[in-house]
Parts: sequence; C-alpha cells; structure tokens
Amino acid sequence: MPADQLVQNLESALSKVPLIDPHSHIDPLAPVSKSLDDILGYHYYTELAHSAGMSQALLARDADPRERVREIVKFMDRYDNTAQYAWFVDIARTFLGLDEKATRITAADADKLFDAAEKTFAQPDWEQQVFAKSRLEKIFLTNEFDDPLKGFDTAKYVPCLRTDALVFHLDKPETRRRVEAATGVYVRDAATLRKALATIFMHFTRNGARACAISLPPTFHPAKFDDEHFYEQMQFHDFHDLAPGVFWMIAEFCRDFKLPFDLMIGVNRRVYERGVYQGQDLFDQRTSLVQYKELFNAFPDVTFPISVLTSGQNQELAAFSWIFPNVLPNGHWWYSNTPPFIRKDLTERLTCVPKTKLIGYYSDAYKLEFVKPKYGMYRRILADVLADEFVRPGVLSETNAVALGTRLLRDNVREVFKV
Amino acid sequence: MPADQLVQNLESALSKVPLIDPHSHIDPLAPVSKSLDDILGYHYYTELAHSAGMSQALLARDADPRERVREIVKFMDRYDNTAQYAWFVDIARTFLGLDEKATRITAADADKLFDAAEKTFAQPDWEQQVFAKSRLEKIFLTNEFDDPLKGFDTAKYVPCLRTDALVFHLDKPETRRRVEAATGVYVRDAATLRKALATIFMHFTRNGARACAISLPPTFHPAKFDDEHFYEQMQFHDFHDLAPGVFWMIAEFCRDFKLPFDLMIGVNRRVYERGVYQGQDLFDQRTSLVQYKELFNAFPDVTFPISVLTSGQNQELAAFSWIFPNVLPNGHWWYSNTPPFIRKDLTERLTCVPKTKLIGYYSDAYKLEFVKPKYGMYRRILADVLADEFVRPGVLSETNAVALGTRLLRDNVREVFKV
Amino acid sequence: MPADQLVQNLESALSKVPLIDPHSHIDPLAPVSKSLDDILGYHYYTELAHSAGMSQALLARDADPRERVREIVKFMDRYDNTAQYAWFVDIARTFLGLDEKATRITAADADKLFDAAEKTFAQPDWEQQVFAKSRLEKIFLTNEFDDPLKGFDTAKYVPCLRTDALVFHLDKPETRRRVEAATGVYVRDAATLRKALATIFMHFTRNGARACAISLPPTFHPAKFDDEHFYEQMQFHDFHDLAPGVFWMIAEFCRDFKLPFDLMIGVNRRVYERGVYQGQDLFDQRTSLVQYKELFNAFPDVTFPISVLTSGQNQELAAFSWIFPNVLPNGHWWYSNTPPFIRKDLTERLTCVPKTKLIGYYSDAYKLEFVKPKYGMYRRILADVLADEFVRPGVLSETNAVALGTRLLRDNVREVFKV
Repeated sequence: MPADQLVQNLESALSKVPLIDPHSHIDPLAPVSKSLDDILGYHYYTELAHSAGMSQALLARDADPRERVREIVKFMDRYDNTAQYAWFVDIARTFLGLDEKATRITAADADKLFDAAEKTFAQPDWEQQVFAKSRLEKIFLTNEFDDPLKGFDTAKYVPCLRTDALVFHLDKPETRRRVEAATGVYVRDAATLRKALATIFMHFTRNGARACAISLPPTFHPAKFDDEHFYEQMQFHDFHDLAPGVFWMIAEFCRDFKLPFDLMIGVNRRVYERGVYQGQDLFDQRTSLVQYKELFNAFPDVTFPISVLTSGQNQELAAFSWIFPNVLPNGHWWYSNTPPFIRKDLTERLTCVPKTKLIGYYSDAYKLEFVKPKYGMYRRILADVLADEFVRPGVLSETNAVALGTRLLRDNVREVFKV
Repeated sequence: MPADQLVQNLESALSKVPLIDPHSHIDPLAPVSKSLDDILGYHYYTELAHSAGMSQALLARDADPRERVREIVKFMDRYDNTAQYAWFVDIARTFLGLDEKATRITAADADKLFDAAEKTFAQPDWEQQVFAKSRLEKIFLTNEFDDPLKGFDTAKYVPCLRTDALVFHLDKPETRRRVEAATGVYVRDAATLRKALATIFMHFTRNGARACAISLPPTFHPAKFDDEHFYEQMQFHDFHDLAPGVFWMIAEFCRDFKLPFDLMIGVNRRVYERGVYQGQDLFDQRTSLVQYKELFNAFPDVTFPISVLTSGQNQELAAFSWIFPNVLPNGHWWYSNTPPFIRKDLTERLTCVPKTKLIGYYSDAYKLEFVKPKYGMYRRILADVLADEFVRPGVLSETNAVALGTRLLRDNVREVFKV
Repeated sequence: MPADQLVQNLESALSKVPLIDPHSHIDPLAPVSKSLDDILGYHYYTELAHSAGMSQALLARDADPRERVREIVKFMDRYDNTAQYAWFVDIARTFLGLDEKATRITAADADKLFDAAEKTFAQPDWEQQVFAKSRLEKIFLTNEFDDPLKGFDTAKYVPCLRTDALVFHLDKPETRRRVEAATGVYVRDAATLRKALATIFMHFTRNGARACAISLPPTFHPAKFDDEHFYEQMQFHDFHDLAPGVFWMIAEFCRDFKLPFDLMIGVNRRVYERGVYQGQDLFDQRTSLVQYKELFNAFPDVTFPISVLTSGQNQELAAFSWIFPNVLPNGHWWYSNTPPFIRKDLTERLTCVPKTKLIGYYSDAYKLEFVKPKYGMYRRILADVLADEFVRPGVLSETNAVALGTRLLRDNVREVFKV
C-alpha cells in the first residue's frame, strides 16, 4: 500500500510505544545472536532456502557457520520477494550497518555481513542495545515445565509455562521421569498428576510466570476425564490418549492460579518428514473453535488468548471473541504472520471485537534481533488499517487512532497478563 | 477507505433509492422503539458489553431500563471500535439530536440520550417519521407459523413464513399443539402434516406473504422422506429426526405456492450457554452448500435466496449462484455483517454472479430505527466497491454504476419477491 | 482499483512479455474459432446466461448457431457485471472491431458481431494473427492418453498427458479397450498396468510432452497399492476403487520420466445435473492438502504444480509451497479465476513463497482467442499487486517489479516445464 503522510504519521507515533512482547521462544540465558548464523539459522530462512532448492548439507550441526550463511544468502535471490526476507534486510540495516538505501542483499554481501555481525554481536552491552533499539520493555518466554527459571531477570524476561509435553507426551517414560525430577512426584493416577501439576504451577507463579501456553493440532477436542479414566489409562494403557483430560486439568490449574491460558490452534507436526529443523509442520484448514465449546463454557474465569494458524479461521476467532468474555484474539501466528493475512485478520477483528480484548501482536522470536523487524511489519499494517478504517472515514482523529493502536500494541498486554 | 468525491457521489445517489427491506424481525404491532432500552437491548449491544466485561445483572427482565442503558453505554468505551457502535452513533445523530460532529458517546451522555429517546419516540407519528428518514417503503417480517397476521398493513409490513419450529421442533408436543390450534389438524402422519402445512401456506399467501424462511445448522442435510418413514417416526419415535423430511415437504409447498425459500445457513445454537439473550449462537466453519445439492436439483422452480453465516463460505455461495438458476446470494448475515466481510463478499459476488440475481442487503432489524444505520453502512461499502471495480477501471459510468447499485438495493428485491 | 500511472507503466511493460501458457484445452487441429458460436459456446457464457434465466433450448447441438449467439448476447444485460463478460468485450474490441470506447454489448450487436466473426475467423492466417495479437509463443494442451499427438507443431502446441480417465474410469470396459488400442496391452494386473502406462509415457515424452495432469475431487487421498491389491480389485471387483493406487503409479512414472505432475484439486463433478454442457461441476470447500502429505513426501523428485479450486485453500497452497520444495502454486483456476480471488491469492503467495516457484497464470482456454483477455485480466491485477506490495513501499524499483512479474508470467514456466 502507498505509505502516505497520514499512514507515516500513525506509524511513527506507534513506533514510539514501548513494547511488551507476549510470546517468544527467547532463551533468557542467550537472548541475542552471537553470529549471523544465529539469525539465518532461524527456520524461516532455512526452510525458504531449502524450498527454493538449497540442499540441507550445510544445515548439519557440524557444518561451518560461515559456509552455511553464505549458502542461505546465496539463495536469497530466489526468495527476496518474501516478508521474511524483508525482516532480514531490516536487521541488516538496523544492526549490521547495511546502507539504508540498499534493498537487495546478494551473495556478495554474505561475508561482509557475517564479519559485521561477529563484531557487533560481541559487544558486551549488545543485549541492552537491542532492547533499546527495539524499544522493548519486557518479553515473554516459553519455558518447559521443568525449567529452573534461574539466572535471569524475570521482570524483563517473563516466564510462561509451556504445557505441550505434559499434554501430548505423558505416555513417554522420559516425560514422566522429567516430571518426577522436577516435582518429586511419581505420576501414577489423577491425584499424583494433580500433585505434580500443582508443584509446577507453584514453581512458575512464584517465579513470575504470567501465562500458560500450548500448541494444538487441528483435530484436538478438550474433555474432562474422571479420575477412574486417568487411572485406567495410566495403569493399563501406558498413559495413552490422556491429552484431552490432562489439558482440561491444566485449565483447572490456570483457573486456580489465575493464569491466562494461551491456545495456539491448528498445527500438524512433521507433515514434511525430511524438512529442515522446525520446518516440517503444516496444517489442515478443516478445524473449528466449536471443538472448544465445552472448555470456554466450563472456565468462565480463565482468559484464553487464542492464536489460529489459518486466516480462514479468523472469522471464528473474531466471532467467538465477540461472544465469549473469556476468549481473546492473540496476534498473528506463523503461516498467518505475513502482510496480506495480518491486514485481513486485523481489519476483521478491529471492526467487531471489543478493543480491550485485542492482543495485537507478538514476535514469536528465538533471538531478540527479530523483535524489531517483526513489530515493524505489524506497525506498518496497523497504521494502514487505522488510517483506512477509522481516520479517513472520520471516525477517529489521528490522536485517537494512535491511542487505539497503542491499546493493541501495549495496554491490553499489560491488562490481560497483569504485567 | 478514503471517501473521495467519486465514492461520495455514488453514495449520495444510492442514498436516494427507496428501500424494500427483504428480511427483518420487526413486530408490526410494535415496529419502533419506545425507549432507548429498546435500542440498546438489541443483542449486538448486550453481547458486546458483556463480552467486554459487563455483568448480566442489569439485563434481567425486571431491572430498571434507565440503569440498564447507563450500564451498556458505560461499557461503550471498550467496544467503540466496532461497526455496531457506529450504528448507534448514527441512530443518536439521526434520531436523538446528537451533534453531527460528535463521534464519541460516553457514560455522561446516557441520561441525556435516554430522555431524548423517551420524548422523541413518544411522538404519535414516530413510525411514519422513521419510515421517511430511512427512505423505507416496505419491510419483510419473520412470522411464526401460527401468527394471525392481523392488525397491520401487509403492504408496508410484508409477511414471511418462518419455518424453524415446524422443521426442528415438531418433536415437542407444544409445537404440535400450536399446529393443531392454528390449522385444526392433528398431525400424526405425512398426510396430516401435508394438510396442516397446506393450511398454513394458504393462510400466509392469502395475507400477502412473499417468502418462506428458515435458519439452519452447519450440519443440516435436506432429504426426501417417504410417507412410511414419517409414519414410523411419528408413531413410534416421538416425532424425532424428522427435520430433513419436513424441510423437504416445505420446499414442495414453496414450489406449489410459488414462494421463494430463504435459507440462512450455518448457525449453531446455544454455543455460549450463559450468554446474553440472543447472544449465545455461533458457528462451525466446516459446512458446504454441497449438502443442498439434491434440494437445488429437485426444485428448479423454487427460488432459494441464500445467506451464509461465514465469509469463508461466500465463494461457494457465489459459485453455486453462478451455476444454479434457482440459487441467489442474499445480503450479509450476522457475523458477516461488518464492513470487511461485506466488502470482500460483495466484491466476490459482483464479479461472477449475474447482477439480476444479487439481493444486496437486508437489515435483520428488530426495531425500525436500525434500518437506516445498517443500510447506511452497506451503501458506503457498495459505493466504494462500485467505484473501485467498475467506475475507476472505466467499465461503467457513474450513472450506470448507480443503476447497478440500485439493482442490488431495490430492483432485485422487487423482482425476486414479486413486491 | 484506480489504474494510476505507476500501475499503467507496470501493466504496459508486462504486456510485452511473450507468453508460454502452461495449461489449456486447445484442440491443436482446430485451435481458433470458426464462428462467434465457438466463442459464446464457451461454458462461461452458456452457464451465466442459463443461470440468469436463459432456457437451454438453443444450446442443443442442432440449434442454429446464429440464433444461439443472439440468445446468449440478449441475456448479457443480466450478467454484464461479470469478469467473463469483460473477457468478451475485450475479444470483441481486439478481434471483431468493436469500438474501443464501447463498454456495453447489447442484443442489437449480436448479428453485427456474428458477421464480423465469420469474416475475421475465415482468414487463412487467423491462427497466426491470434498468436501475434496475444503475444503467445507456446501453449500447453491437455491430451487424452490415447491421443496420437500427430498433425500439429509440438513446439507451439506442447502436449500434456491428461490422466483423469486412467485414474477414475479404469473400471469402465471402454477405458480399458482404449488403453489396449493405444498400447497393445490388455490390463489385468499391476504388471500389465505398468506396461501400458510405460507405453503411454513413452509415446507422450517422445512427442514433446512437458507435463502430466489430472483434476481431483475434494475427497481424494492418494495411496500406494501393492500388486496383490491391484490384482484382487481387477480380477474380483471389476477394477473398482483403484483410483488412489493408479494415481500413485502415475506419480512413479512422472518421477521416472521426469515430468511435472499438475494437480488440479477440488472439483465435484455433476453437482447441477441438468446444467449446461461443462456447467455442472462445483465443489466442497472442506478439503485439505494434508490429504497429499504421503505423496509429497514419497516423491521429492517430482514437481507438483498445484491449482486449488477455492480461494479458501490458497493459504494451504502457499504454506505447502513455502515448506515443500516439490510443491508449486499454479495459476488461478476456474471459480477462483476472477479479479477479487486472483488479487487475494496472488498477494498471499507473493509474500511468502519463493518467487522462483510461482507459476503465475494459465488460460485454461478452449479457443486461442481467450488467451489475450484472460492474461490481460491477470496482468492488470499483477501490475496492481506489484505496485501496492513492492513499488510504493519502496521495496522494488519499477524495473525490478517488472522483472518479478516477468518471472511469474514466463521465466518460471520455462524453468519448471523445461520449455
């Protein structure tokens, strides 16, 4: 879209809002990149390069990082039309001194950028610099249930309990061993599972956790299991088919510990079996929030910030958020995190869901350097949507439009997650 | 979108077209509001306020109307971003003397508006005033099968036979009692059901009914039942599971009585069990018009104006309307009745369905005051789409674009429903 | 959209790119129209006219062509809002001398156009003229498996093996007779089926075939069958239910003969049983590319250019193409081949799929005269999307945007299909 004066004003005003990023995969003990390999090793680049023809040879753990970077950059002239490439150009300009006017990055730039990154990322205050340049205030983590949550500032790096393993892999002895190691509880029935979960929730909330999260397949249907059923499955069926019931029990703890439960709905794991690391998952558009009807009705006091993987499900998310007080639309996830989908989904939500319930965006980043380009993309679209839907039709003044945008970017994150 | 000169010209020309509103829930014996409570009691406001945090205490039947209005208005600063809020601002400006330049309505305005409404709505000719200010000529009703259809001018308020109860609740003794009371026929088999339906259709067509209507769940699949099957279900299974067959029989009467059959497809009832009155229904995006294949083939002489609840199904509706002579797209329903969905769905229909088959819009209103703001929203979008898709590319002159818009707004309603 | 200067520049630059049309239904022995009846006999016109009320009487094989054309043109004032009508106006202007400024075609023009067509199409070099006026270089065919592929220049008319009959109609004795006649092989088990397919693939590749193609229903799920299963179904079940396995075997031949396998996914045949010729098929939006998971994993060396019938499935196509190296988005098919769907689907693909994998468009034409208007529609939208997504935001210069457009229009077709 043409970035006219109005859109530029809105965008520049929104770019001054300090960010609280409500979902990421940052490792608080290694939050920033150490080399360009950390940036381009992000699955968005390895999967696009591989999809465009790059062999996976140089993606091997023991391959030379500089060689790997050269290869991924070499293939950019095959995917330099993508939003993901645009994030990299933004990173190269903001952090690696690429000329502001440069819009292309070619194979010839690989070594120069690699060296610049090595030098830049080696600065002792690099982490602080990235926080500052990104106007980042706090960022949520995604911690495994047995994470000690030690060694970092939980005021800056907000813990969030990831429950995928507990819900989907309790049938693996390794998971149960981890549960026992973390809680001292040997799970063998509903009561011991409750005891273990209570210990985990206690540990997380005491360490400043502000949310519980999970990613779910398109077919998932939560269900309350009675204790006998847990007992039977655990004792006689190797802990199989417990996911719906364990999920339900976790929702009960979210209620008791007053934690929002982030649901990320719609991913099918390992669809492309030989895909690159983290580049194997896809989805099936045939899914519905109706599968969560009983859950939303049973837990009126639990806030469910929901991310849907497909834009086709956005109308369901908007409608369920318009009707259920405890359902909130949350950001733009993964395959729906590119401009055309964000523009569509954001516009749909903004015109029918109470503004106080709209959690605008999260970076989903693995390294802090990605917060800035991803939020930058979102702010450009947000400014554009605010201009088209509210300012130009005379519904809101520029000032009020910026206030609305700020609510999506920051205020609602603070209120929903109580930070 | 920016309302430039061209769009303004088209919109102002379209705003002069007298309206025939082909679907509403108006009570012809109490068509207009008596107090602001009638306006803000509309489920679009109670459900948004509740979704944004308002308790349901003041929604009780015996609660004080003024208190209820204060509460709903108080919460508007949480949902003043929505299209539904914009309808209310339009109503306050048009009917309640709110300053034209005012774009916000706050808690402080509640009493002032409540008093203004009481005074305004008390005028003896208020109904006529609303018709005039809305440029409304006729409006369709949605009448229960046992509605006497007496006491109102059927030239202004066009009767429409609602068949939901007959199709989905014939297993309730109360429904069968109502059928017997209305028709004198005690239904016990296919023959008596036919006799009762014939009586009902006779009653409605003699009283100027111009359509038959029903709302259907996403899973519904019509089917022709033979008389033996009706007999068995009625005699030995308490009238259960008759919906597909009763629906089919009603389609046969639509054919014989030459009535269009409005299908409103996709609603799941009572998904949010503790939701506000009329704010409990949602949907499942997984549905298809293919479920109606046999119906459309079996009744080539019945016109089926179809509304789909989800924008995701709009391409199916457009394609089925492009192929089947008896299938017509009808308005923008409920969860798809906000600007982004209307814009998308209208543009898709306008570029592939014969223009003579496009029924542009209906208000779905419960009180006449909503006809004006809802049609106003639609006309703005229609003007915008006509400008972008036809006038700017040089396909149509402004005059011809207005003619095309008029066809969607009025001409097709007259031709399809023979009014 | 407003065709401003930038969009006009891009469009005019793109209109100079010589076309290689990767999918059509052209009969190379009768590639151009002989009368206006060949143009308006195209199902897009007969089905729209019929949908708008035209009886099928004049569509009978033995009806008078001039009368038929008059009737179809007479009904145009009911569907002159459609994209399909716009194609016809373009044809009438480009080939039949209709005034450039004329935007309407009415019943009064029927005879004049009919006569102009008769005269124009009778020119000995008409085929060459259409190639020249359309800037067409090569066009792909869709040949039945027993097509002799003789009597035409395969450098201009590129053969493509259509496998629908082999996959879905092998249970018909007539199909097996045709296989035996074409290959000399009497199919009775997996081995003889392989022998027959090998002969067919040999015949096609020796005659310059560059692709294999098939159209599939929404429910289709490919599967590898073992030889015993083929034997049992053929010997004891009249060749029933072999489609998944025959399809899989054909994919094996695509791998061995290095032919891309065009999958056209989502069509339900004969939904409108009494519809016009080729105007009876529709779809069910409930389908997913996940059904092809095993196929995409099993054949990493086979390129699958994929067309989806619904825009709702476009995000799946974009995501699968972003992840799987062997999955490519291919054009805009049938019910998704109108401006709003093309604009949406193209924008979604362009921002997340490597540009080297995007096969922009194909005409799907039955007569060469349709290549120009269809590609014209696509180029206008492509120019518009390139302007909005790349040039105006400062991501690409006009020159580079044209290069990106050229890649979608031509370069990728040459590379993917090796022409």
